Amino acid sequence: MLIKIINPNTTASMTERIGECARAVAAAGTQISAVSPSMGPASIESHYDEALSVPGLLEEIERGEREGADGYVIACFGDPGLDAARELAGGPVVGIAEAAMHAATFLGRGFSVITTLGRTRGRARDLAAHYGMARFCRNVRACEVPVLELDEPGSGARELIVQECRLALLEDQSDVIVLGCAGMADLAAEISRTLGVPVVDGVAAATKTVESLVMMKLRTSAWHEFAPPPAKEYLGLLSEFAVS
Amino acid sequence: MLIKIINPNTTASMTERIGECARAVAAAGTQISAVSPSMGPASIESHYDEALSVPGLLEEIERGEREGADGYVIACFGDPGLDAARELAGGPVVGIAEAAMHAATFLGRGFSVITTLGRTRGRARDLAAHYGMARFCRNVRACEVPVLELDEPGSGARELIVQECRLALLEDQSDVIVLGCAGMADLAAEISRTLGVPVVDGVAAATKTVESLVMMKLRTSAWHEFAPPPAKEYLGLLSEFAVS
Amino acid sequence: MLIKIINPNTTASMTERIGECARAVAAAGTQISAVSPSMGPASIESHYDEALSVPGLLEEIERGEREGADGYVIACFGDPGLDAARELAGGPVVGIAEAAMHAATFLGRGFSVITTLGRTRGRARDLAAHYGMARFCRNVRACEVPVLELDEPGSGARELIVQECRLALLEDQSDVIVLGCAGMADLAAEISRTLGVPVVDGVAAATKTVESLVMMKLRTSAWHEFAPPPAKEYLGLLSEFAVS
Amino acid sequence: MLIKIINPNTTASMTERIGECARAVAAAGTQISAVSPSMGPASIESHYDEALSVPGLLEEIERGEREGADGYVIACFGDPGLDAARELAGGPVVGIAEAAMHAATFLGRGFSVITTLGRTRGRARDLAAHYGMARFCRNVRACEVPVLELDEPGSGARELIVQECRLALLEDQSDVIVLGCAGMADLAAEISRTLGVPVVDGVAAATKTVESLVMMKLRTSAWHEFAPPPAKEYLGLLSEFAVS
Amino acid sequence: MLIKIINPNTTASMTERIGECARAVAAAGTQISAVSPSMGPASIESHYDEALSVPGLLEEIERGEREGADGYVIACFGDPGLDAARELAGGPVVGIAEAAMHAATFLGRGFSVITTLGRTRGRARDLAAHYGMARFCRNVRACEVPVLELDEPGSGARELIVQECRLALLEDQSDVIVLGCAGMADLAAEISRTLGVPVVDGVAAATKTVESLVMMKLRTSAWHEFAPPPAKEYLGLLSEFAVS
Amino acid sequence: MLIKIINPNTTASMTERIGECARAVAAAGTQISAVSPSMGPASIESHYDEALSVPGLLEEIERGEREGADGYVIACFGDPGLDAARELAGGPVVGIAEAAMHAATFLGRGFSVITTLGRTRGRARDLAAHYGMARFCRNVRACEVPVLELDEPGSGARELIVQECRLALLEDQSDVIVLGCAGMADLAAEISRTLGVPVVDGVAAATKTVESLVMMKLRTSAWHEFAPPPAKEYLGLLSEFAVS
Repeated sequence: MLIKIINPNTTASMTERIGECARAVAAAGTQISAVSPSMGPASIESHYDEALSVPGLLEEIERGEREGADGYVIACFGDPGLDAARELAGGPVVGIAEAAMHAATFLGRGFSVITTLGRTRGRARDLAAHYGMARFCRNVRACEVPVLELDEPGSGARELIVQECRLALLEDQSDVIVLGCAGMADLAAEISRTLGVPVVDGVAAATKTVESLVMMKLRTSAWHEFAPPPAKEYLGLLSEFAVS
Repeated sequence: MLIKIINPNTTASMTERIGECARAVAAAGTQISAVSPSMGPASIESHYDEALSVPGLLEEIERGEREGADGYVIACFGDPGLDAARELAGGPVVGIAEAAMHAATFLGRGFSVITTLGRTRGRARDLAAHYGMARFCRNVRACEVPVLELDEPGSGARELIVQECRLALLEDQSDVIVLGCAGMADLAAEISRTLGVPVVDGVAAATKTVESLVMMKLRTSAWHEFAPPPAKEYLGLLSEFAVS
Repeated sequence: MLIKIINPNTTASMTERIGECARAVAAAGTQISAVSPSMGPASIESHYDEALSVPGLLEEIERGEREGADGYVIACFGDPGLDAARELAGGPVVGIAEAAMHAATFLGRGFSVITTLGRTRGRARDLAAHYGMARFCRNVRACEVPVLELDEPGSGARELIVQECRLALLEDQSDVIVLGCAGMADLAAEISRTLGVPVVDGVAAATKTVESLVMMKLRTSAWHEFAPPPAKEYLGLLSEFAVS
Repeated sequence: MLIKIINPNTTASMTERIGECARAVAAAGTQISAVSPSMGPASIESHYDEALSVPGLLEEIERGEREGADGYVIACFGDPGLDAARELAGGPVVGIAEAAMHAATFLGRGFSVITTLGRTRGRARDLAAHYGMARFCRNVRACEVPVLELDEPGSGARELIVQECRLALLEDQSDVIVLGCAGMADLAAEISRTLGVPVVDGVAAATKTVESLVMMKLRTSAWHEFAPPPAKEYLGLLSEFAVS
Repeated sequence: MLIKIINPNTTASMTERIGECARAVAAAGTQISAVSPSMGPASIESHYDEALSVPGLLEEIERGEREGADGYVIACFGDPGLDAARELAGGPVVGIAEAAMHAATFLGRGFSVITTLGRTRGRARDLAAHYGMARFCRNVRACEVPVLELDEPGSGARELIVQECRLALLEDQSDVIVLGCAGMADLAAEISRTLGVPVVDGVAAATKTVESLVMMKLRTSAWHEFAPPPAKEYLGLLSEFAVS
Repeated sequence: MLIKIINPNTTASMTERIGECARAVAAAGTQISAVSPSMGPASIESHYDEALSVPGLLEEIERGEREGADGYVIACFGDPGLDAARELAGGPVVGIAEAAMHAATFLGRGFSVITTLGRTRGRARDLAAHYGMARFCRNVRACEVPVLELDEPGSGARELIVQECRLALLEDQSDVIVLGCAGMADLAAEISRTLGVPVVDGVAAATKTVESLVMMKLRTSAWHEFAPPPAKEYLGLLSEFAVS
């Protein structure tokens, strides 16, 4: 089974770490291909970045179909382009926010999301509502570290994240933590050991979700909404995206 | 006051009709500029089309800022790129689904949306939930006429739409109709006369909403989430979208 | 176009200020008539006051119909008598809480309402739920200044309101402020300048909403619920309200 | 214990039947006083009627306080003036829609309301949402018989109501019926025998609810919102309602 | 009328106090029988305890049917076995959490529940959502006193409960208190006097609710879901529970 | 990895088929142990059956802990005893309704559940609400075949189920089917081929969910609510369940 993990930003080092986190949980026989698109933002920290990450993401889905991918993970916590990707892909497509929030509800009564910049909290809350998770998502907390500084030695990111996690347990009455950025994926195990509660990384959760759906031979319904997009002319810079 | 209306698809004839519908309700002193983007799909009938309409839309917002636009209307019933546009624009930005649904709640107890293809119903329901309108949106009905055939003489679109409207009144217990496509804007008045109930066209509703917000000197809050996007490098085909 | 603004309390000085706030945002060609009823409470600070403001309000609607009013604003943040007024009026009727809450959602992620007395918070929350705005209304805060003291020089009202607004931004994670009393209408612009976020006054918002609906030729649906009330005998003190 | 039941319309024959239905379920030692106000509509079939029934209702509450009433029932399915009445009354006040909907949830999975005219359905749905009963209220059905014809021999009301009840069981998947008008109170037992499911009459339910609250020495909280209304001048026709 | 009150734990002293609280509010002619099951946990402080209290509870319902009970109260704030009991019983069955939460909404704008151990908060919130009471239940607070220590002289339980109640009024904006354990039933009146707000004890509330339903001749609907359970073989330790 | 699948009813042939369905999707290295309890009902078709299946289920969890199980599946669509099982088990516990509903949301816009007897619809709807899936669960349909007749040759179960599935696609606007009984697990693949839409079997979905959580080293949070139950004496028939 080939699962293609698309980090919708163009920062290769982050893509590499994401791939490692996915491989660490994949079953024997599951091949992980982690990629970044050929176009788009270096990191995703605004609605603007998110919207502009989608063309490159869709190009990778289209390429994945030719490469024989069995399923896809969208590895950005805003789950950009998820509905569009489901129209293009033959196999299942899962976003990391979606997978992480669902997984968290199997593990406790309520979760808090720890995100990067405060300005992304609105999107996380929107997604929680969209997925039916509003009852379980008790807070979205920001550590105010930009995405690309998360793994810089001097950023203090890990300490700031742990501090927000502690507040989540004490003030939000949460009993599960969800890491709100693909760039935090490698921190989950350690933070869980520190705090003694489950810490869900969306990259791992989405990888296992896609793998499970493929193993069950379940793919996106093509009954109406998620059928392949109708043929259409595209103009200008995006003319290569025309559907024939 | 200059209001820029962006039809996110690239079909000029439709843009022209949209502009006329907006001008018909604008106040004296309000100038309407209706445009299509330089890139993207000829019509929007899938999540894929919608996602790929956003770069061209954002380019037009960015250009509008240099042209001195006071506010913007996004003239597609999926409200594509709305959050991203709000980060870019100095003045208010309103989508036609958003404006139409809000307006409908001032006019009756519940509304039904009449859309084009059945596959777009999911998006309309999502938006209703997102805007807090789920209680009022009693159904989303499709006439199954493609967007670009709506004004073709032989399409029978008008009759099919009226038929769904009648069912909306009788079966959905709705008392207001919302037209679910910018391409239907010119039908609102006539259908309202035929049925004797209010029929809301989102192009007119959004134009008046933006005009009202500008007149009240209200603009999108830049406190956190909708502040301008942080500076960022963009790669490849989309490198021109970099924020400096 | 004639818009009649009904301040449901009987304090003329407040009615006058409300009229000025409405005129400040009205389009050229829109005539504003601001009135108080001939009967009822001097201010509205309880469910009791609110209920008893309705007969006088309805009398003004009935008179407005004979005067040729094109639409109506109910200028009290409890939106008293709104559904009944919609049955009587030929043109649209909009309440200031309703208009302000809807307008706020076009401007940011979430709003806090700043009201007068704490005892009115329940009504504001009820209305937010009723209008589908519960997701967006993050808090209702009281400055504990009675309605008729709001514009008294020594009341300190302005400072107390600004202080609650600051807490709304910091503690409620709101990015938009809604002023929860018609008596605060003249403070909106100044508080917005002080805080740097949009501050919505319901009188202006409702005036523009009614004006917009009239311009679009949209009026309350008379299909079932909001049809004119059936003929009925009324007894005693209220016998003049009989519907023939 | 004295429970005062206020039929907010001025039709004495209906008040009398309401009083009998209440007495039929009252405990030994509970005295029922059923009254109509001195002013207001002959029946309540619109938002207009409902709003104008409130002054007379409040006058009866105020009189009840002097008469030593221990609690109150508002015997109209729109629960008019409920919040205002709670501010005035020392003892508990319960509306018949409120009591009937709550009682229905103890008896099955979901209920349908059978109301008089179709135009009152919106109010019933509003109340269901307001009381947290939206999940349980599966439909509101109208028999289209005006309130004052319900007990006319030739109206066929009973048959029309039973027919809607049958549809409620078969089409709405309801297992409990709620009668949506005080004028139907005397039909509950017979319809229940006919259909073999519980049929809840709000007059009986509210009477027992008030009696229970009084027996438990529970009264409306005066902590903030439902404290007595602040002193206030009232003008014109309503000057007698001034609070001193 | 015979109402059987089943304390689902096996601690007889607590059952006795529960019976006294029920008798204190019962109408003349209502006989109260308070029992504990022959099997199960000494107190209920976990989901495990709650699940295992149900067989003994159902045995008591089955015995009650033979004894001629007219209705039943389940006297544990987790409302264990409520749906199953409704299938077995001919008369109404009401849980104390259910009755208390419903009663609280007749008395104010919002309530806080005061429970024993923090680990039971999740269940109380679940029930509030299940009963449609989520809007009204503003918080669930724990005094962290185990159930069986509530009436121990040195436990300080009363003071800890009162302290949480005060915080509920000040921090949760609640105006009504709900006691979240049958073991607190005897404290309601005194705490209400201390705080000056209504304090609802579920034992009293459920007793009056059952008594009211019986007086109105209302019993659980046997239309589908709550019909008697189908005949079935039961194996092993539970073979006596077979339905024939 | 050892996953223990507990069919909470005592019918061994059904347990065997459940085990096969789980093994068909398990990863290499995952060992499946499918068991029925030593006590309880032969099938689960009422709230009564469900409640009485829990003691035997918990006994199997307790035994599983001694056997070294890494995680558990509760293989009845009512998810009986789920919260209690989570307190007892060291590893994750997932119910088949829970897993199936979550999986369905990754595959389309909305799902219908096909259950056995109509009387179980209420429980399925309750669970959908409890898991945040109410928006996605568009209907619960019953084929009215008892659980133990599902695999009887002459029952016509397969045809009745397919017929309800077709109605789900056409009338409910669902694009995904969820099979609402563990006894239908072996039908999923064939029905999916017949209808051309994804058909989710909860046994497979829950097995993969538990396997995924174990692979990610995620277990139920023991922070407060789901910590092991406190020590407690148990009386009578259930004395063996005492926690020490």
